Amino acid sequence: MIYLDNAATGRYKPKAVFEAMMEALHSPANPGRSGHSASLKAAQEVERARESIRRAFNADESEVIFTCNCTEALNIAILGWLRKWKGRENRVICTAYDHNSVLRPLTALKGEQDLSVDVVLPNKNGEIDARDIREKMTDKTRMVIATHVSNVTGAVTDVNAIGALCKEFGVPFLADCAQSAGHLRIDMQAANMTFLCTAGHKGLHGPQGSGFLIMKRGVELMPIKFGGTGTESMSLTQPTALPEGLESGTLNTPAICGLRAGVEWTHEHLLKINADIKAFCNILRARLEGLSRVRLYSPQGSGLVTFSVAGKTSVDAADELNEEEIFVRGGLHCAPLAHAALGTIEGGLVRVSPGVGNTLRQAEITAKVIAKICDGK
Amino acid sequence: MIYLDNAATGRYKPKAVFEAMMEALHSPANPGRSGHSASLKAAQEVERARESIRRAFNADESEVIFTCNCTEALNIAILGWLRKWKGRENRVICTAYDHNSVLRPLTALKGEQDLSVDVVLPNKNGEIDARDIREKMTDKTRMVIATHVSNVTGAVTDVNAIGALCKEFGVPFLADCAQSAGHLRIDMQAANMTFLCTAGHKGLHGPQGSGFLIMKRGVELMPIKFGGTGTESMSLTQPTALPEGLESGTLNTPAICGLRAGVEWTHEHLLKINADIKAFCNILRARLEGLSRVRLYSPQGSGLVTFSVAGKTSVDAADELNEEEIFVRGGLHCAPLAHAALGTIEGGLVRVSPGVGNTLRQAEITAKVIAKICDGK
Repeated sequence: MIYLDNAATGRYKPKAVFEAMMEALHSPANPGRSGHSASLKAAQEVERARESIRRAFNADESEVIFTCNCTEALNIAILGWLRKWKGRENRVICTAYDHNSVLRPLTALKGEQDLSVDVVLPNKNGEIDARDIREKMTDKTRMVIATHVSNVTGAVTDVNAIGALCKEFGVPFLADCAQSAGHLRIDMQAANMTFLCTAGHKGLHGPQGSGFLIMKRGVELMPIKFGGTGTESMSLTQPTALPEGLESGTLNTPAICGLRAGVEWTHEHLLKINADIKAFCNILRARLEGLSRVRLYSPQGSGLVTFSVAGKTSVDAADELNEEEIFVRGGLHCAPLAHAALGTIEGGLVRVSPGVGNTLRQAEITAKVIAKICDGK
Repeated sequence: MIYLDNAATGRYKPKAVFEAMMEALHSPANPGRSGHSASLKAAQEVERARESIRRAFNADESEVIFTCNCTEALNIAILGWLRKWKGRENRVICTAYDHNSVLRPLTALKGEQDLSVDVVLPNKNGEIDARDIREKMTDKTRMVIATHVSNVTGAVTDVNAIGALCKEFGVPFLADCAQSAGHLRIDMQAANMTFLCTAGHKGLHGPQGSGFLIMKRGVELMPIKFGGTGTESMSLTQPTALPEGLESGTLNTPAICGLRAGVEWTHEHLLKINADIKAFCNILRARLEGLSRVRLYSPQGSGLVTFSVAGKTSVDAADELNEEEIFVRGGLHCAPLAHAALGTIEGGLVRVSPGVGNTLRQAEITAKVIAKICDGK
């Protein structure tokens, strides 16, 4: 079996992730609720995870909010920020590479308030250009949202340029780092990110059920969920203090502990991990470039190989790879505007997303199977 | 160490829970996204969990929505249902035993719409009486919410009576089963529950990070989160099909697998588990009844022993127990109206919540330490 769907969920989990999770699972207690030693220890582990995340993303002066996935982090930031502007005429800039976890909250908000969404398309190189964002900036623009790395093509967006632009205009910047965290070194301060959202279970090698929002200290959001925070127990109104004001209900301590270990392990091995991924992609790309029926959509140097096979839907191609026990994703990738921009709505795309443990030999095998598929009907 | 804070997080996890989680953690894949075998297997495990939950709660004709905790399940049901009534004059009936995870969403909704909350107080026996709910029913009442078992006193609410009343009035009934699931056998159909919310990590012996909402099929909610569902990928609008329409983003497969094992194990051993818990509580109660400084707040027969010590705050008493390595919860328990009704806002209450593995000998030891605390200052 060759697993090449790491952009959906990372297959490899470091030993330290299992160990951290096992320890938390074997002595469960509720962090931030009771005052006994087991509860305090759980709370300490959660704080330790926040510290590791701040360190990894150079986010000293930020709050780390734990979520169950990146989608939740994006919803907290997008809905939580834009609902504060209700009653005004509002605009948001996002990109064609944004995922449905960005686009669908924005669509929902359009039903609640006077909101227009300005979508920046990729340029002829398939990249989002900060200059195109500048052109869409207005005095009604409340937020700029950009996916750091496209989950469809792997194209990298220059978040530092966008961050500088947002600083110039005084507009908050949200970076969706679901596909970049653990792959690129992200410096939240250098990129002037107001909000950084990501999943724990992809490039950070943590477990499913983990994700987080990092947000600049001092920013206030309207919560999307309300409930017990272990603080201000007598208040019927949701406390505003962070992080607990945005983390109602019992936290997922085992996942947070696993995520902490994953973040630390990943950032220690970041260069090697991603050099290996690039090497895999380079070989596969080189082989696919020789196949006349294959059209590549991911740019040179990205950590994905995305392609179509002429005369075949991506779902069929992915199914044929699956028959050879090669696991990739076909179809549409929850990023409708990206497929529209690429002209791949009808057939979708096959996405190969390698991760830790995938070998160059597996790249060769995968290329051979794709060649065989091309030779078939 | 004697852990007696199982109402916050259950300490004991059956072997089957670890095994199910380990299997999912060791071969991670994204359920409901890609079409390859590993993804399909993950999706099958998630469906298997939904089936187990339907069986355990007699909820054949219901949707099971996975959440990260009970708070999220309550928010999805409360916000999702009541937001549909925006623009009308709305009333909701809830109880003084409801948790902040019910009360705070309701408070937030008051800021969005014309909503009045009618709170039913416990009667002189400390119980919520369906007749008092009947008295508050109006033609503007959109929902009745009741906590099945109080997390403060352990008092049991007759959900069958409330469900019958709701059926008579045609009003949806939401039962917060955070403290009853795994302790009482819950029959969703017999109790005419429209919505059942619970956590996975308490009485159901699953891991933190798990919880669910069961809702009658055909009921529609406005989602609180929007994003990728793996379906209708080209639609910028959140799909309405369930369960995915209310489960945006990657699911927590390991926690769901663990929860499935926990639900099955718990329901197989339900009678024995809860007979043991009751036996523990009976002994502890009997001993505490002999202490003049102790006042008990939990009714006879409940699965909690909640008390105060005259002249001492509950936090101090809990800290003294902690020094003897007995872990209980003191203070306020995120249920402000319950503390108001009981007159325990100032000092809070000490809650002893035993679970699987706690022995009668531990009940005696706990009683002795409490007696010693009473003998002190």
